[in-house]
Amino acid sequence: MRRIVATGTFDLLHPGHLYYLQESKKLGDELYVIVARDRNVKHKPRPIIPEDQRLQMVAALKPVDHALLGDTTDMFRPIEAIRPDVITLGFNQNFDPAVLTEALRARSLSAEVVRIGGYGDRVLCSSRRIVQRVIETRGPSFRAAQNTDSEGL
Amino acid sequence: MRRIVATGTFDLLHPGHLYYLQESKKLGDELYVIVARDRNVKHKPRPIIPEDQRLQMVAALKPVDHALLGDTTDMFRPIEAIRPDVITLGFNQNFDPAVLTEALRARSLSAEVVRIGGYGDRVLCSSRRIVQRVIETRGPSFRAAQNTDSEGL
Repeated sequence: MRRIVATGTFDLLHPGHLYYLQESKKLGDELYVIVARDRNVKHKPRPIIPEDQRLQMVAALKPVDHALLGDTTDMFRPIEAIRPDVITLGFNQNFDPAVLTEALRARSLSAEVVRIGGYGDRVLCSSRRIVQRVIETRGPSFRAAQNTDSEGL
Repeated sequence: MRRIVATGTFDLLHPGHLYYLQESKKLGDELYVIVARDRNVKHKPRPIIPEDQRLQMVAALKPVDHALLGDTTDMFRPIEAIRPDVITLGFNQNFDPAVLTEALRARSLSAEVVRIGGYGDRVLCSSRRIVQRVIETRGPSFRAAQNTDSEGL
């Protein structure tokens, strides 16, 4: 059994996430997904969806065999428990594969690191763009319009 | 093979959607999900996520065997093609099961109509609440704060 680990925040699920997980799964037999803890998301705004709910939704996706929350202090701890053959990186994850590989070797982990390509420039395949669209289409100007609408829908 | 049909908009997927689909699937062997067309969503604001993307994400969920877009003019057309044994209604879908059953009979469709209960009052198990949270946490006041932040994160 060839075990694969994919990681990410998976806020506001979209087809870019799905593509990353599907491509990751193709590299082996069993796909483990480590979902980032709320408190560990520091390089971008805190997730909209709380960690337990992000975990639940990732676990419900067809390519995913096991989903778990990350460790709050040591990102390598779950990887030591899983001992994957491959760790995949999404196209917008900032890790340098060479640096990550070296850090894995220092922990006696032999996983190969594979970068998964991008899913292309589709309109809403980005949590950030979904957030933008929510604000543009339902933000204060939308609500002001709703409030002046005399028809109760 | 007992065929089940579930229907809905499935905008900004959350565990309430998942619960509805899981409970629907338990009633038979094969779950078909009819995803509402953008133009047919009239009783609430237009979906954030376009119909093709909503379809793709619903199709990726484990309980779902087949997902398809609704008909733009005749909601019964896909049901005539599938000929389900059961049609499930989500807890917040406005159809009256008795009225729907009568309309099905008028089209010679014998499906039983079953209402699936609510998933409870969990915080973000509602597309509307996810939209609210996006606006509260990332709307104009958040962006103003980001713009005055001298640290480029």
